[in-house]
Amino acid sequence: MNGKELFGIIKKKGSFLCIGLDTDIDKIPSHLLEFDDPIFEFNKQIIDATHDLAVAYKPNIAFYEVMGSKGWISLQKTVEHIRKTTKDILIIADAKRGDIGNTSAMYAKTFFETFDFDAVTLAPYMGLDTVSPFLKYDDKWSVVLALTSNNSANDFQYLTDKDDGKTLYETVLRKAQEWGSTDQIMFVVGATKAKSLQSVRDIAPNSFLLVPGVGAQGGSLEEVAKYGMNDHCGLLVNSSRGIIYASNNETFAQEARKNANQLQKEMESYLKNARLI
Amino acid sequence: MNGKELFGIIKKKGSFLCIGLDTDIDKIPSHLLEFDDPIFEFNKQIIDATHDLAVAYKPNIAFYEVMGSKGWISLQKTVEHIRKTTKDILIIADAKRGDIGNTSAMYAKTFFETFDFDAVTLAPYMGLDTVSPFLKYDDKWSVVLALTSNNSANDFQYLTDKDDGKTLYETVLRKAQEWGSTDQIMFVVGATKAKSLQSVRDIAPNSFLLVPGVGAQGGSLEEVAKYGMNDHCGLLVNSSRGIIYASNNETFAQEARKNANQLQKEMESYLKNARLI
Repeated sequence: MNGKELFGIIKKKGSFLCIGLDTDIDKIPSHLLEFDDPIFEFNKQIIDATHDLAVAYKPNIAFYEVMGSKGWISLQKTVEHIRKTTKDILIIADAKRGDIGNTSAMYAKTFFETFDFDAVTLAPYMGLDTVSPFLKYDDKWSVVLALTSNNSANDFQYLTDKDDGKTLYETVLRKAQEWGSTDQIMFVVGATKAKSLQSVRDIAPNSFLLVPGVGAQGGSLEEVAKYGMNDHCGLLVNSSRGIIYASNNETFAQEARKNANQLQKEMESYLKNARLI
Repeated sequence: MNGKELFGIIKKKGSFLCIGLDTDIDKIPSHLLEFDDPIFEFNKQIIDATHDLAVAYKPNIAFYEVMGSKGWISLQKTVEHIRKTTKDILIIADAKRGDIGNTSAMYAKTFFETFDFDAVTLAPYMGLDTVSPFLKYDDKWSVVLALTSNNSANDFQYLTDKDDGKTLYETVLRKAQEWGSTDQIMFVVGATKAKSLQSVRDIAPNSFLLVPGVGAQGGSLEEVAKYGMNDHCGLLVNSSRGIIYASNNETFAQEARKNANQLQKEMESYLKNARLI
């Protein structure tokens, strides 16, 4: 999927919602534990109830790895179920991989061939060598960590270079745009720093930004839209816990839909305000 | 395993060799493809042939992920086989994980509970929040990427801070030592930059360093020992392809042993020169 197609889905659905599938066996409704594969059953019901409201799903790979080989089966089935359910969706592996050479090529093969993801989150510490194997795949995305919303983002991301006065995250934004086109590279930008989105937009005006941290992590959707939206939306805003754990009983999927719907409606209004739909 | 115990094993074996299990289904001897689990069978024979010469094994997680859920079974069996074979070994998951909060806790649980690893390689971009869940486990190690040996290491690792004149990798080395003790934190330092090891040692005199890149990637073991060794050795030097793919026929494990033995003998001489054994 390229950027134009993604914008097409955003307009069609009036939404730039990404639903994070951080599916935790200790948090899903207990009646699901009777199923052979409770993780998949949970995801399936969430997907069935929300796919018209979301433009992306983002399985958080840590939550599947922790289950060992069974978790990878749940993940595989989840990706296949999304593909079967709708064509109008981007599937992001939130994996934060970051290696080089042959190893990085194996990670790219994992997420783009073994699994049928459209995008993978990547850590930039080792530079272009981490990203280049992912760029060899057509219509796939590398989602590069730029500015994150956690407390210790400050440890390194704000280091300021003595020569050009730019911070590390600004340098990542600038260099990564040289590595690939805006159809290949997105950036992770934390939502609790919505005003920083303006500085990100100055450097990367045309890139899609994946914005986690709205909802449970405290970011404001209104501010994200205000500072982050560009002429093709350019935003995917993620919510995980606020949607998938909306309720802990048998109606969890309907409750998830309600919360997703509320976000989608709000997103639709921002898209209308910006005259994008 | 703490640092003192690790040094004990180094002295006992006269070795600071880490063998990288980058086991690729396309590179292992073809007669192994008849086995139910060729990846595990390959690893098993390598481990059986080399465990007295190595102080650590380092499965490269990308090579298991690419096989999907089957790969995670091979990985599980590999770790169990190492544990069954010897007590005198450190098992490192080369995973380069780097996330925060709940997600990072899931990665820690994956490698320290779901699997029985002693150590995990981690990417520092998001700061302390990535590492802190791993530090909660006793006798386990976080191996933090500091200075890597790839071409594009230069993209970000050498950015120099305007205030203190330190590079990013130097800042990682300094800060990460505040996060945990030298029994908890190791660093990845690329071997093709052996002279940089001296600058690393100035900042982290007492830390263990995991040094990839000797052999296939072009680093010199002699230089690594010269610039990197401290009073408790403080080095784990990795070789992957140079050992495990020494031969492609039925005697591959014996050939692997020959190459491992050669490295071990050389390491033993450096340990003797330094009067550590």
